[in-house]
Amino acid sequence: MIWFILSLFLSLESNAHSFQFEELAKYIDSHEEEYVEILRDWVAVESVSTDVQKRPDVERMMEMTAEKLKNMQGKVELVDVGQQELPDGTTIPLPKVVTAQFGSDSSKRTVCIYGHVDVQPASKEDGWATEPYNLTDLNGNLYGRGASDNKAPVLAWIHTVEAYQKLGIELPVNVKFIIEGMEETGSDGLEAMVKVQKDSFFADVDYIVISDCGWLSRRPALTYGTRGNCYFHAAVRGLPGGPKEDLHSGVHGGTVIEPMTDLIGILSKSKKVGQILIPGICEAVSPMTEKERATYESIEFDMEDYRQNIGVERLMHSNKVELLAHRWRQPTVSIHGIEGAFSDPGSKTVIPARVIAKFSIRQVPDMDPKEVEKQVKEHLEAAFAKRGTPNKLKVTMVLGAKPWLADPQHLLYEAGKAAVKTVFNVEPDLVREGGTIPIARTFQEVVDKPIIMLPIGGFDDGLHSQNEKMSRYNYIEGTKLFAAYLHEVSQMKD
Amino acid sequence: MIWFILSLFLSLESNAHSFQFEELAKYIDSHEEEYVEILRDWVAVESVSTDVQKRPDVERMMEMTAEKLKNMQGKVELVDVGQQELPDGTTIPLPKVVTAQFGSDSSKRTVCIYGHVDVQPASKEDGWATEPYNLTDLNGNLYGRGASDNKAPVLAWIHTVEAYQKLGIELPVNVKFIIEGMEETGSDGLEAMVKVQKDSFFADVDYIVISDCGWLSRRPALTYGTRGNCYFHAAVRGLPGGPKEDLHSGVHGGTVIEPMTDLIGILSKSKKVGQILIPGICEAVSPMTEKERATYESIEFDMEDYRQNIGVERLMHSNKVELLAHRWRQPTVSIHGIEGAFSDPGSKTVIPARVIAKFSIRQVPDMDPKEVEKQVKEHLEAAFAKRGTPNKLKVTMVLGAKPWLADPQHLLYEAGKAAVKTVFNVEPDLVREGGTIPIARTFQEVVDKPIIMLPIGGFDDGLHSQNEKMSRYNYIEGTKLFAAYLHEVSQMKD
Repeated sequence: MIWFILSLFLSLESNAHSFQFEELAKYIDSHEEEYVEILRDWVAVESVSTDVQKRPDVERMMEMTAEKLKNMQGKVELVDVGQQELPDGTTIPLPKVVTAQFGSDSSKRTVCIYGHVDVQPASKEDGWATEPYNLTDLNGNLYGRGASDNKAPVLAWIHTVEAYQKLGIELPVNVKFIIEGMEETGSDGLEAMVKVQKDSFFADVDYIVISDCGWLSRRPALTYGTRGNCYFHAAVRGLPGGPKEDLHSGVHGGTVIEPMTDLIGILSKSKKVGQILIPGICEAVSPMTEKERATYESIEFDMEDYRQNIGVERLMHSNKVELLAHRWRQPTVSIHGIEGAFSDPGSKTVIPARVIAKFSIRQVPDMDPKEVEKQVKEHLEAAFAKRGTPNKLKVTMVLGAKPWLADPQHLLYEAGKAAVKTVFNVEPDLVREGGTIPIARTFQEVVDKPIIMLPIGGFDDGLHSQNEKMSRYNYIEGTKLFAAYLHEVSQMKD
Repeated sequence: MIWFILSLFLSLESNAHSFQFEELAKYIDSHEEEYVEILRDWVAVESVSTDVQKRPDVERMMEMTAEKLKNMQGKVELVDVGQQELPDGTTIPLPKVVTAQFGSDSSKRTVCIYGHVDVQPASKEDGWATEPYNLTDLNGNLYGRGASDNKAPVLAWIHTVEAYQKLGIELPVNVKFIIEGMEETGSDGLEAMVKVQKDSFFADVDYIVISDCGWLSRRPALTYGTRGNCYFHAAVRGLPGGPKEDLHSGVHGGTVIEPMTDLIGILSKSKKVGQILIPGICEAVSPMTEKERATYESIEFDMEDYRQNIGVERLMHSNKVELLAHRWRQPTVSIHGIEGAFSDPGSKTVIPARVIAKFSIRQVPDMDPKEVEKQVKEHLEAAFAKRGTPNKLKVTMVLGAKPWLADPQHLLYEAGKAAVKTVFNVEPDLVREGGTIPIARTFQEVVDKPIIMLPIGGFDDGLHSQNEKMSRYNYIEGTKLFAAYLHEVSQMKD
């Protein structure tokens, strides 16, 4: 009996707007090749924000994004967000931020879509099977740098609005866009811009939607938390002013105290297998509640599948809850590499004069980036001082992004569940994200409106890695999900 | 009275062949600009032997060298020395070795000049003030990669023979050349070639002269020893076959045991300030004799000058004998860099999947590269095993070059002292070299003829570093030194 009433209710509810969704879904399906082509054009732009040499490409990417939105009759602006200070003290303009608006009906809710069109560095030499900036279509996957992070999701949102427009279906909510080109470096300039436009662009925004993450498995997911990130550069060199130059390791080895030895020495003191050795870091982490543990236990997650996918012999934790906890709600240190030392294939007999380690610590509640900065500096400086070396150490925190956490019971998430049900006919996983979307916390603190992360990326998209891809399935079904979501938001009863 | 007899003797001796030397010196002085121009042409060739991509440039350099010697009517050959095996198992041809012969008068001694025309890598981005392959003439210095190591010295020897020829002065000795293009990678192929030609090319060779090193100060020097070098690659990665790809440090950080952490961990166990931590290395070193110590004490060496030149606040040792001993007759470990990790400027949030540390240990008597290979592998493998990581370590010794030591009392050195006296009117320093000339030991063991190292490079030439240079003074006066040396060798009383 209960089952009968329930299915009647579900069928009534889905019938209430099934016509529109079918039409939108059909339109989206029939435009798949067009969507792939524009993704190809976007991936071809090497919009690497971490490399200032590529700044013109990032600028071009912002202009292409603005152009696309203008062609759809959006009210579009390219917003100047100021200057970036480079390590050498000089400044260059930050890429402009694109804002756009579709509809301003005060009787409707207003949703603001955040996305980014800058990408991580990539080159064939890193081990890509295909040219990273040449979108390559293989077995239903679209390989290319930025395909999943975050160009296809941004396009999927744009195509959603376009589909409503082309079909002459009225947008159920007002839609705003805010698209940036510095996400991969920590959203430089965007925080200040959000503060400035709090009472203008953001004044009528009711909800913020971010689609810059991925599913946990083949099941669609809604994301309610991200880790933050404190990124450090630790530079070791001789005298300020010297050694300006690398030395021949045969001619001078044994007479100088090598910066590389000092750097390796202190790095080895920051981490060992499964353990962060910097005092204070782990102590600040909020303990896991019983309720939280229960949520983690209920998540569908195949450890073996995950292990095989990332290709390691053994994971850090053999228990699902522990593994997911260390992915989402525990800090971690990663050493990314060393600048200034010999990094090419082959052999070179050099004593590098100035070496800079790059490492980062993922932030979780209740860590405070300001505290972490202090803890890291004190720890490394103390370890360095103990070495009795004449070299100089300079530790700089180049990014200090806080973690973000939402309430997965909020109506926005209920709307998300309904949209997932419409498109995929399943319940989504409720997950957190190990990565960082620096601006989420800023939206939360400055704009102070509910945020949802609604991912369409696959669990195995290879973000920041070689062979990044977006599957055709996720791209197209994801666009349908967004189309359904706009409708669900308009139907929320708050 | 003694002074009077001595100066009479000196004046008589120098008069005995002063005419020829003056003529040669004048010829050399008047051809300075021509010598600079040909050095410019040679430096322009990016003959980097450590980078297989540059192999065509190395081949071209060998052909240019052969061409120059052919134009001087030498009996020249470009000798095929076989194939090089690359790390991926494929092979490519080694650069040919150039041999040449000027004169075959059996009543004369035969001197074989060894040199190399390959260079270390260099790029403007490494911090050169000028384009490294564009010879730049500033304040009497000729800046360019390979200028001092070893293109100008090779040219100086060629110009010496040419000066005798052009002036119609009979060469006082037969002169042979053996010029290679793989010195910077450990003289691949040359050892086998020397063995093969022991009884042909080398059959009539009486002495071997190498000018591939530098002075210790502004005073000319003769070199009677070099350190050897064992160069290691230590690679850490996950499963054989995976992780083939780098991982996003946000998405996966905390779930995988990172190869970079393991590598940094074991590297920190190989060395600390002023101390090699690998058991057995230092124990093999022959103790310093009292006589040796006395020799070191008598060497003119300005510690402060050296310190300022390399630009460090404090040297490893504050005592001249200790410092020179650690430069010449003690082993040292240098960590050159890490391949596979993030090494560009800026920031990237990546967990590198496969990282390869490059480090080398300079060899001195009585170390044995085979033993060192065993010691290093055992030490690193044991440290790695203790970590309990599922990652895999592979340590490879890519070069194992023995040290070389000569008797500085040998007649060849007496001839060197006389030649230095003729050109510079001073006594040379008797020095050793911290760097490695891998083929010296092979010549010693296979050809079994006396060897002298007769450097003309300056103490501050920046070999293997940014802003390598050869001064015009050393280039031109060095050519005169070689001209005088050929004569002195013909006059030796053995």
